[in-house]
Order: sequence, then C-alpha cells, then structure tokens
Amino acid sequence: MDIKEILSKTDHTLLKPESTWEQIQTLIDEAIRYSAASVCIPPSFVKRAADYANGQMPVCTVVGFPNGYASPRTKIFEAVDAIENGASEIDSVINVGDVKAGDYDLVMAELAALRRATEGYILKIIIECCLLTEKEKIELCKLVTEAGADYIKTSTGFSTGGATFEDVKLLRENVGSTVKVKAAGGISSLEDAARFIESGADRLGTSRIIKLIMKGETLK
Amino acid sequence: MDIKEILSKTDHTLLKPESTWEQIQTLIDEAIRYSAASVCIPPSFVKRAADYANGQMPVCTVVGFPNGYASPRTKIFEAVDAIENGASEIDSVINVGDVKAGDYDLVMAELAALRRATEGYILKIIIECCLLTEKEKIELCKLVTEAGADYIKTSTGFSTGGATFEDVKLLRENVGSTVKVKAAGGISSLEDAARFIESGADRLGTSRIIKLIMKGETLK
Repeated sequence: MDIKEILSKTDHTLLKPESTWEQIQTLIDEAIRYSAASVCIPPSFVKRAADYANGQMPVCTVVGFPNGYASPRTKIFEAVDAIENGASEIDSVINVGDVKAGDYDLVMAELAALRRATEGYILKIIIECCLLTEKEKIELCKLVTEAGADYIKTSTGFSTGGATFEDVKLLRENVGSTVKVKAAGGISSLEDAARFIESGADRLGTSRIIKLIMKGETLK
Repeated sequence: MDIKEILSKTDHTLLKPESTWEQIQTLIDEAIRYSAASVCIPPSFVKRAADYANGQMPVCTVVGFPNGYASPRTKIFEAVDAIENGASEIDSVINVGDVKAGDYDLVMAELAALRRATEGYILKIIIECCLLTEKEKIELCKLVTEAGADYIKTSTGFSTGGATFEDVKLLRENVGSTVKVKAAGGISSLEDAARFIESGADRLGTSRIIKLIMKGETLK
C-alpha cells in the first residue's frame, strides 16, 4: 500500500468544539493539497467550507454528534440543513440508548428516515462500537445494510474508545456488500492507517495522518 | 443551608449517550420523590418523559449538546422541537469556535434567535468555561444578559472540566441581575453542592446529589 491510497481514503477531520473558521480553512487547504477523500467538519462551518472549497474537496459533516440522542426529527433537519449548505457526506450517530434498550424498531425508523432525507448523498452511520456488545454491533450491521446507508463507522472519537482492527473486521464481515466501513477515532500512525485499510476500512476519519505526512513521515 | 434547598435547585441529570428510557423513568421517579427542580435528559426522550412526568416534574433538555457547533438553524429547530415535545427548560451550548475567533456577532445572533424561539420557557446558555479565557467568559456574560436568557451555565460535563467555585463567582459578578447561574459538571458531594449555591449558583446540574441522599448522606 502506498501513501496515496491512504490519503485517498482519508476524511481529513477537525471536530473539536473550539475549532475556528481559520483552522477549518487550513484543513481544507491541506485536504486539497494531499488529495484527501473529504474534509469532515462541524455543521456550523459547512456553508463557509463549501464556498471556500469551491468544488475542489467534498465537505463531510456530522449529525446528532457525538452523543447520538438528538431526536430523529432534529437529526433529519440537521442532515437536510447540511446538504442545503453544501455538504455531500453526512456522518450521523445512532441513538445508543435505543440500542441498549433493544428498541431496534426506533433505530431502524430513524435510519430509514435519514436515508430518505439524504438520497443522492453519502450517508455514514456511526455506531459507537466502544459502547456496544458484539451482538449489538452485528444487529446494527444488519440494520445499516437494510437502511441502505453507504458506510458504517466505528466511532465518534468522543467516547471511551476509537477504532480497533477487530471492530473493522467484525463490521466488514457483517454488513452487506453495498456498505463500506469507516474507521475513526485515535488513528495515529501511517502503519495503523494501512492496517485499518487492510482490515477492511474504505475510509479513515483522522486529523493526524496528513499532519504526519507533512512532517515527512513515510510508511515503514 | 438544608438539603431541601439543595434539592429544590437541582436539575436531576442523565445525559450519557447510552442512557435508556428505563433509566430516564427512574430518574423522573427520583426527581419527583426528592422535589428536584427538573430532570435534565436527552432530547430523544423528552416526549416520553413529559408524558410520564405528567406535570409533576419539569422536563429540561439540551440543544447543540455537547459540542455546541450545530448550525444556528438546527439549534433553533431542536429547541422548538423539544418544547413541542413537552420540555419547559432548554440548555443550549454556545459555539465555542465562534468565541475563539472573536466572532461575537455570530454568537449574539444565535442567542437572540434562540431567545425568540423559546419565549415563555426557561433558556440556559452553556458557555463551557473550561475552554475559555477569563476575558471570553466576561464577554459572554454580557451577551447572555443582553440576549435575555434566564441562566448562564458553566459546563456541559463532556469537556476537559466541570464547574468551579471561581467560575460561578465570576459569572455571578458579570451577568446582569436578570440572569441566574447554573453550575454543572463534576458536582460530587453535598458540601460542594452547598458551596456552589453559596458562591452564587441558583441551579445545579448533577446526577449524584440525589443518589448521595438516597444513600443516607447528610450535610456535614
């Protein structure tokens, strides 16, 4: 695997609460320069980012993020608002409490409504693996596949743990062939990035990979 | 100060991403039994909670929580949705990145729009003190007062730090007389709860105080 393949699968990400518009501009510049897959940024910056990127870089944003317990109506409003503002990729967090309660009908209804609202755009569903049992993860693989989402994503990066190789393999084995896997949270070396891709990830959500490459790091 | 005063100022809170409806029901039962000020819960549970509480306990929920960077339009939608679902108190997080960039006009526009959208209901503005300089906190005290919000709130409980006595005093000294102070995040003993109130807090956001009282703890 070469660096270009890693970069082409990287959502260059900045989701800290204190992120400023100036930092987002730098992020977009870097993403364009290194041919990333997208920039993944807070909803409040999407309009400015889409204008600034001017078609040179897809804008990805987050919905119901990071806790996942916004109401379904709010998540749908937020997704549509982001698309109207110029986002082409939506990373939405499931309601973990509904999963824990076994209320999979509520989870499925939300996923289906989100899919309808984002038709024609890339929809990634964040399931926050670190809070789930293996059984819950496998059940969610089925639901995300059935809903027709484009990706299942391991983590928000704001909970108790990020992506693991085991989770990426588990998700890859249990989603349908129409669903890709995004690994996110704590990806901190080029070697790990390559290994996540080898484990079955088609996208990586990370702020660090491009920074490492800018520092001159190469794959060992 | 007696325990009843502390309880009457406590927003009995459960905002973990994995919170279930069953846990929220227990929270409401406890809040009613101990005469708390409100229950503070995720937006996705507001409708069920308002039905279940049936007027015996105000339902408080969160907006743009915890990262604060939902778009202003989404925050307003989320606040109105929560009120329509039965919430009577809204705790909304400011956009910290806009504060960091000095874009106070954006912050003020959002606060004013939120105030209009929540007229007649209690609006609390969370400024996430742990990410701010003293100068920024003081500037936000002015804006929150000017916007006509009911409370300024120290913290989400999801960032690098919770309420401090110093911050409560600083906010109390710098907001207008129409604005109350809510301390939240990490309040872990009855003595601290009393001291937060003595420092100027009119509300406490905490999950622990009622649990301590249920275990038989008393103020020393």
